[in-house]
Order: sequence, then structure tokens, then C-alpha cells
Amino acid sequence: MGKVAIIGLGLIGGSMGLAIKRARGQQADVIGHDREPAVAARALKANAIDSVARTAEEAVGDASLVVVATPTIAVKKVFETIAPHLKRGAVVTDTASTKASVMKWATEDLPRGVYFVGGHPMAGKEKSGPQAAEETLFDGRPYCIVPSVDAVPGAVNSVIGLAEALGARPFFLDADEHDAYAAAISHVPLVASLGLFNLARGSTAWPELANMAGPAFYDLTRLASGNPEMAHDVFLTNKQNIVHWINRYITELLRIEELIEGDDPEALYRTLAETQIERDTFLNSPPKREDPGLPSDLPSPSQSFVSLLAGGMWTERAKEMNDALEERARQRQREDRLRRRE
Amino acid sequence: MGKVAIIGLGLIGGSMGLAIKRARGQQADVIGHDREPAVAARALKANAIDSVARTAEEAVGDASLVVVATPTIAVKKVFETIAPHLKRGAVVTDTASTKASVMKWATEDLPRGVYFVGGHPMAGKEKSGPQAAEETLFDGRPYCIVPSVDAVPGAVNSVIGLAEALGARPFFLDADEHDAYAAAISHVPLVASLGLFNLARGSTAWPELANMAGPAFYDLTRLASGNPEMAHDVFLTNKQNIVHWINRYITELLRIEELIEGDDPEALYRTLAETQIERDTFLNSPPKREDPGLPSDLPSPSQSFVSLLAGGMWTERAKEMNDALEERARQRQREDRLRRRE
Repeated sequence: MGKVAIIGLGLIGGSMGLAIKRARGQQADVIGHDREPAVAARALKANAIDSVARTAEEAVGDASLVVVATPTIAVKKVFETIAPHLKRGAVVTDTASTKASVMKWATEDLPRGVYFVGGHPMAGKEKSGPQAAEETLFDGRPYCIVPSVDAVPGAVNSVIGLAEALGARPFFLDADEHDAYAAAISHVPLVASLGLFNLARGSTAWPELANMAGPAFYDLTRLASGNPEMAHDVFLTNKQNIVHWINRYITELLRIEELIEGDDPEALYRTLAETQIERDTFLNSPPKREDPGLPSDLPSPSQSFVSLLAGGMWTERAKEMNDALEERARQRQREDRLRRRE
Repeated sequence: MGKVAIIGLGLIGGSMGLAIKRARGQQADVIGHDREPAVAARALKANAIDSVARTAEEAVGDASLVVVATPTIAVKKVFETIAPHLKRGAVVTDTASTKASVMKWATEDLPRGVYFVGGHPMAGKEKSGPQAAEETLFDGRPYCIVPSVDAVPGAVNSVIGLAEALGARPFFLDADEHDAYAAAISHVPLVASLGLFNLARGSTAWPELANMAGPAFYDLTRLASGNPEMAHDVFLTNKQNIVHWINRYITELLRIEELIEGDDPEALYRTLAETQIERDTFLNSPPKREDPGLPSDLPSPSQSFVSLLAGGMWTERAKEMNDALEERARQRQREDRLRRRE
């Protein structure tokens, strides 16, 4: 039975352990490592992992699947550390919030004979650490999957299977797309939240503002309580995209400001009513995105995930498969999306 | 037994009815009116009110306490309509999100012999209508109370009692303070939320963005699903303050952008870590705001609320009271706060 190693046992790593164990019960064999022994001990106590490894090297030695769930910048260091100790045929994935840097590091630092598939679960909350971990954290959430150029289809399939085992919804895209989109949908909301909190906190009227705050302020500033290391790494590794989208956000705010200041209350009302309808439509029936899917001659993702954990027999099968077909489909899709992306 | 009349039976009016009935059980006698008969019927069915009045005039004729819970701009029309029909000694309050206009309308339109005390519960959610109403909506939330210059202490006390009966936390301030603070703590978060949603919705990559959205996007854009009429009225009646705070918000966003773009990752990290600590401090032990309190020779708010509903005996007592003391204290406090406000 193959082992899963999780490096980094905070909110995401801890929740992943819990969710894998929920999916696979007794059959799960999850070993964990965290740079802070106290965090690893808490994860073990929370039953998010089955055993603790004192070092990252030790954690991966025996693992068929390695999940690096540290803040983004630490991923590179972990790759360098574990590279010589990875089992041949192992699948390595991560959970970092930006993907271009991570894909580059994987190419530079991971050895041939192991397969890297980038991952980014669009899940989380403002509390950190394994004590905040939940087995349901990923339920129904998108799980971005960014295969490296040399990942065999079987390896990709295993990470799809992992995402599905976690209860998440696999979502394919390439690293550049990922980072551009994540800036708009995730990193600028973080900036907006930080800005709203600091706006009020920095005012001399803060004692009044704090006491007068209702649910709008609590909810909108939630992300300001998130892990600062994670935010720091996101900002540093996705600078250009985030700056681009902050500027577009400011343009959007100025457009609303103009409507508020202007003399056309009907236009203001129309914009508000349209936005309400659009958001409710988004909630009730989000726009379709044609999914690339996978060639039908591949084993199902859950088969791949299970057989990966069951000892790597998938590697034989995977190698036999013609991934040209899949790559061509993905390429077509990517071009399609690049055309549509701004 | 005095009646409570609620004009406007949406989320706030409906929740207020439910909360009053939770507090006072069988003794509550709540009559409601809504411009839309279907809404009134739903409120009655939800047991938020005991009876429906076909007109606002009819609703208030017999009421000791009148709560106007319509969108802000409609408040003026309701004041004009109900003015000739209000019982002498009745207390009138509202729930509008901005206060300066409402206080002005009260002075212009309400007759002598009734007492207006402005109110603004800092509660709500993005769903509207009595079907979204909850008796717990106000629990633990601040309830802004803005007495008109000629409201006798007993009338003020009754609205404090109402707020407490709803489970809320009364919070005194004057209309100008209220509108400046609400812009920062409530109206700009609404603008921020609308902006974030429109930013993504307006992108050609929207199908991808929508499918990739995680909890950050859902939570931060929540307010964009709110009642457009309410938002419209807020923006029109609090223009200057909102524009002022949007501009400060943009300055704040640019400051974060500069940190992200800049070459000082340590400064970026320090800002993020400080913001996290500040927000957690806000959650765990919000700053103290010295509350004006009320002179000790006044009946307790719950006594006032109950005796108001029990038939207006408070009016005699209230008239006897020397409100100079209270007014002087409030004046001192107001000056204090104006000094601190930017």
C-alpha cells in the first residue's frame, strides 16, 4: 500500500489529511512533516495524519504521492530537500496559491522519474494551523490542476483522483492562466479586504467605527485575519497580475463613485439592479466552462489515485498511453482560453 | 396595551416583528403595512406581525410606537402620509441606513406632540423580503440611536428599550457622526463588494473566473446581491461621505499596491502581520468607547419600552424629567467625538 506524504501541516495540509482519511478510511496511510514539531504533533492528535516524520526527507522516502502544502516560497526549499529522496515514479503535487514559480521550481529541482502536477485548491479560511483543519474544507470547491509538461497522463489522473477524493471539483488550466485568474478572483479580494480593514483601523474614529461595525464590515474584512506568510508569498510570486487587477479594481471603484456623485440616479439604480441579478445568476447557474475532460482510454481518476496508492502499477499502464491525444486537446483548449482572457 | 406599527415589512421590518414577538410573547400587538400587499401577507404568514393594515395611516392610528422600516428615500413619503394620523405622545423611529436626511424630514413632516428618535440597526444580509426575516437578526448587533433635538428622554429611552428587546446593543451618536462613520464601516464595504463582483463579471475570462471562484470571492462579493433600492437610497443620501471614504479606500489600495510592487518584502510582511494582529484584536477585544449612558433618574430602557406599550404613562414621567443634564452630557460627548473624527 503506497503512502501519502504531506509536507506542511497547517490549515490546508491538515484538512487534506483529514479528507484523505475520510475518503479512504483504514486504507489511508498518511505520513506528515512540519517544520514546527508542535504543529505536526497537533496534526497527529487531530488524526489528520497517521505518523509524523522528523524531516521532509524521511516523510517522502516511502511515499507514492507527495503533497507539498507549505506557503508558496517555502515550496522551493522543500523541493530541493526532498529531491534526492523521492521514490522513482512518485507523484509530487503542491497546494500553493500561485503556480508559475512553482512549476519553474519543479522543473529545476525535481529529478527525472518523478512526476510533478501543480495543484491549488480554491478553499481556505482566515484561521490557520491544523487546529482549524476540517475534512469538509474542499467539498464542492474548485481544485486547480496544472500539469507539468512532462507529467504522464497517469500522474495527472492521480491528482484528479486526489482532488475528487477530497470532495473537490478538478479544474484544468496552465500556470499563466492560473496566476492571471487567481489574481482577479482571489488575490485582489484579499487586497480589498486588507484595505477595508486598514481604512477603518487607521482612522482616528476607530473606537467608534469598531463598536458600530455590523456584518458587512466583519465579512468583508475577514481575509485580513489570514496567514500573513501565505499572503506575503502570494503577493511576491504574482506581482504583475495582482498589480494589473488592483488597477482595474480601482477603475471599477471610480466608475461606481462617478455614478454615486453623478446626476443620474436612474443609471445608478440600473447598475445596482443589474449587478444584483448578475450575482444571483452566478450563484444559481454559473456560466458553463467547457471542460477538456480526459481521453476515454485512460483509467478513471479514482482508479488512478487508488492504484497509485496501491503501489505504482499505474506507471506501467500510464507509459503505454498515448498522451499526444490529450496534449493536443489541452493545447486547443488553452488557445481558446487565451483568446478569451484579457 | 399599546400597539407597535411597522411600516415596510421587508427583511428589517419583518425581522423586527419576529424579534419583538420573541421578546414580548403574547403581549406583543404588532400591526404591519407594506406598499406591496403580497409582502404584508407573507409577513403575516411568517408570524412577524399580528395584523395587516391596508394603509400606513390605518397602521399608525392606534400605535404607541411606529417603526418606519422602508428604504431611506421612501421614509419621507411615509412621514408625510402618517403625520396627521399619529397618536399624540407616540414615538416614531426608523431603520434607515443614513440619518441626516431622515432627521431633517422628521423635523419638517412630523407633528408636535409625537417624538422622533432615529434608529439604524447594524444588521442585515444580502437576501431581502419577509421570507428572509429572522428573529435573531439583531442579536448582539450595534443599534445606532440618533435622538431628534426635541425628543424627550422617555422617548429616547423607549427606543433604547426597543433595541434591547431586539437583542441589539444601543449605540448613541448624532446624525452627522452616524453618516460619516456608516460610510466607512458599511457603505464603502458595499461599494468594495460591488466593485469586486463587477471586476470579475466584466472580464472576458468570466466563465473561467466564475468556475474557479472560492470562498474569498463568494464572501467578498456577498453585498452585491443586496437590495438595489436600499443601496441606491444609501448612496444618494450619503454622497459626500461615501465619496470621501471611497477616495481614502483607493489611497489605501494604492499603498498596498506599492508594498506589493516595491522591493521591501519585509515591510510587506510586517504590514500583513500587523493587520492580522489588529483584526484579531478587534474580534477578541474591540476598543472601548466610553458610552454616554443615561442619567440615573430615568426609568430603565426596558421599563420605558414596556410602559410605552402599556399605554403612554411614561409621557407624564418623561415631561417631569430634566433633560438638560442629559443633553449637556451628550453635547460634551459629541464635541469630544467630533474632535477625534476625521
